[in-house]
Amino acid sequence: MTHRIAVIPGDGIGNEVMPEGLRVLEAAAKRFDIDLELTHFDFACCDYYEKHGKMMPDDWFEQLKDFDAIFYGAVGWPERVPDHVSLWGSLLQFRRQFDQYINLRPCKLLPGIKSPLADRKPGDIDFYVVRENTEGEYSSVGGKMFEGTEREVVIQETVMTRYGTDRVLKFAFELAQSRPRKKLTSATKSNGIAITMPWWDERVVAMSDHYPEVSVDKFHIDILTANFVMHPDWFDVVVASNLFGDILSDLGPACTGTIGVAPSANINPEGTFPSLFEPVHGSAPDIAGKGIANPIGQIWSGAMMLEHLGHADAAKAIVDAFEAVLTEADQAVLTPDIRGLGNTATLGRAIAARL
Amino acid sequence: MTHRIAVIPGDGIGNEVMPEGLRVLEAAAKRFDIDLELTHFDFACCDYYEKHGKMMPDDWFEQLKDFDAIFYGAVGWPERVPDHVSLWGSLLQFRRQFDQYINLRPCKLLPGIKSPLADRKPGDIDFYVVRENTEGEYSSVGGKMFEGTEREVVIQETVMTRYGTDRVLKFAFELAQSRPRKKLTSATKSNGIAITMPWWDERVVAMSDHYPEVSVDKFHIDILTANFVMHPDWFDVVVASNLFGDILSDLGPACTGTIGVAPSANINPEGTFPSLFEPVHGSAPDIAGKGIANPIGQIWSGAMMLEHLGHADAAKAIVDAFEAVLTEADQAVLTPDIRGLGNTATLGRAIAARL
Ligand SMILES: CC(C)[C@H](C(=O)O)[C@@H](O)C(=O)O
Ligand SMILES: CC(C)[C@H](C(=O)O)[C@@H](O)C(=O)O
Repeated sequence: MTHRIAVIPGDGIGNEVMPEGLRVLEAAAKRFDIDLELTHFDFACCDYYEKHGKMMPDDWFEQLKDFDAIFYGAVGWPERVPDHVSLWGSLLQFRRQFDQYINLRPCKLLPGIKSPLADRKPGDIDFYVVRENTEGEYSSVGGKMFEGTEREVVIQETVMTRYGTDRVLKFAFELAQSRPRKKLTSATKSNGIAITMPWWDERVVAMSDHYPEVSVDKFHIDILTANFVMHPDWFDVVVASNLFGDILSDLGPACTGTIGVAPSANINPEGTFPSLFEPVHGSAPDIAGKGIANPIGQIWSGAMMLEHLGHADAAKAIVDAFEAVLTEADQAVLTPDIRGLGNTATLGRAIAARL
Repeated sequence: MTHRIAVIPGDGIGNEVMPEGLRVLEAAAKRFDIDLELTHFDFACCDYYEKHGKMMPDDWFEQLKDFDAIFYGAVGWPERVPDHVSLWGSLLQFRRQFDQYINLRPCKLLPGIKSPLADRKPGDIDFYVVRENTEGEYSSVGGKMFEGTEREVVIQETVMTRYGTDRVLKFAFELAQSRPRKKLTSATKSNGIAITMPWWDERVVAMSDHYPEVSVDKFHIDILTANFVMHPDWFDVVVASNLFGDILSDLGPACTGTIGVAPSANINPEGTFPSLFEPVHGSAPDIAGKGIANPIGQIWSGAMMLEHLGHADAAKAIVDAFEAVLTEADQAVLTPDIRGLGNTATLGRAIAARL
């Protein structure tokens, strides 16, 4: 069986980490005898916008919809295109039109990567953030009144549906059930955001009835962010709305020191549409073109993609390979962000070689 | 001139830390010859709710509006009254009806209090979060449709006004201008929350024209929370919407290890209505009744209150006093949360004695 992968490097360092992501992916495919067919696309980036006045061609949906997965680099370059234009014209379209309603991000301490937290070591922190990825606070409903005057009022609506909420909760409960600790934490703010969030809490309680083995707790988002810093070992699976999940899935990797190397999966669990895999880091215009970006985020995202495509063994081999390279800590190989003297290519090659 | 203070201990440990807050306040008043008139109120707590079916009497506004300040303990006890009922029936009413549109919280490493971050020491972290405190994401506008069915849709509107936004930005710019570093950071999410937040960014730019000496930057809330953990030394004054400010002003003190002792001020800068001063910690039902709660949050809030009332010298003396007691680190005096063997009263008394 051939897996058809759409490859979109995007902006900035996306173009630099993607070749290493592909190098490792191909090494894994070879070793595990997986048949990958890669097709490259040059849209969904600011270069394309500057040429065509839009982020993607009109038929992007048709062009991409039959792929098994999208392997994405990074998008955005605020000095060239405002972020809300570039993002709503690409990544956020994929998430919505391909109904990638799960955003999944691991938060894990890695060997050889320094955490900003005191007294933590690999094994202490290992959890997932499951984020709702299509609705909620990221809505396009709202507008302005008395625009440009002293009386100006700006309104934006958060829209949550039972359909959209229950399915992300279900995914999170299933994930929690499959893990040894079987623990789910819900991010809420029902004491302040008094319409949507108390309702979110109710849906969590309703869903928990179907998963008696899973222990459930909840925290308001303010103290939850505090607990990520103070007690990251408390968490196993954390489920959150679109905005809260966005925050927690940057903060989690920040606590493990892995924000530059964390992966993310935008999943359509039913497989009706392609799922999308991308590193958490952005396009990093400040270091773009220097060849020093750390490619592990892209490589790890490739591992999540293989796992999604049914190759858990190959995914694990990739993670083992980069953990081994990190443990070895050969300065000549590592990128500068993790105190090495190497570059994007030396690190990518070392990981591929290890496979 | 007499300052009239309304004293409201509220719920749980609010009742235990308030006496120590008052003890230190009175010691400072004596030393600096400040005339305080304290009036105690038994409402705005769950006890009152259980007796009267509401959090406050109907004429609470009349009863409180002529005070110079409100000194509050903590409110909420979710096992007895749902949070959105207790909070919207008390604290959030004060903030709105008394137009306390600034929520101000210091984030500061203290001697003798362990930070969860590695390699940080007192002096490294010292910034303020300025939070919009009356509008934005905390709105009561919205509702449900198809309630109780599979088609259920729940909507809540974020409402921002130029009036409400500009005045909090102005306060934050003034504060930044008054500090040595003169640096302001704006919390945004204009890449995802694409109606209100790009507009927020525009208002920041417009206001910055009036403060050419203040250097301004902005971060999206996701990476901003990450930077609180990775680079807390970057920040001087951080300005944020109601929800983002809520998150940042818990996360900031968490990074300094001071979430149990941080103060907060809910300010009506014009003095048309009383401002309100309360510790950041909640009512902590789990330790209520044990007499072991750390009273520094209440005491530090008292210092912020004195500063607001024009007594910066007395405020500084209180902060110096508790910093001295923390530096001394007499185990018999400190509360268990900071590895002491004492209790709420021993710590409160030691600080008052130091004054
Ligand atoms: C209790 C809650 C409603 C409140 C808020 O969200 O404003 C609290 O978290 C705070 O920050 O004072
Ligand atoms: C770039 C931005 C719109 C996006 C988001 O907020 O979803 C990013 O932060 C992410 O988490 O993938």
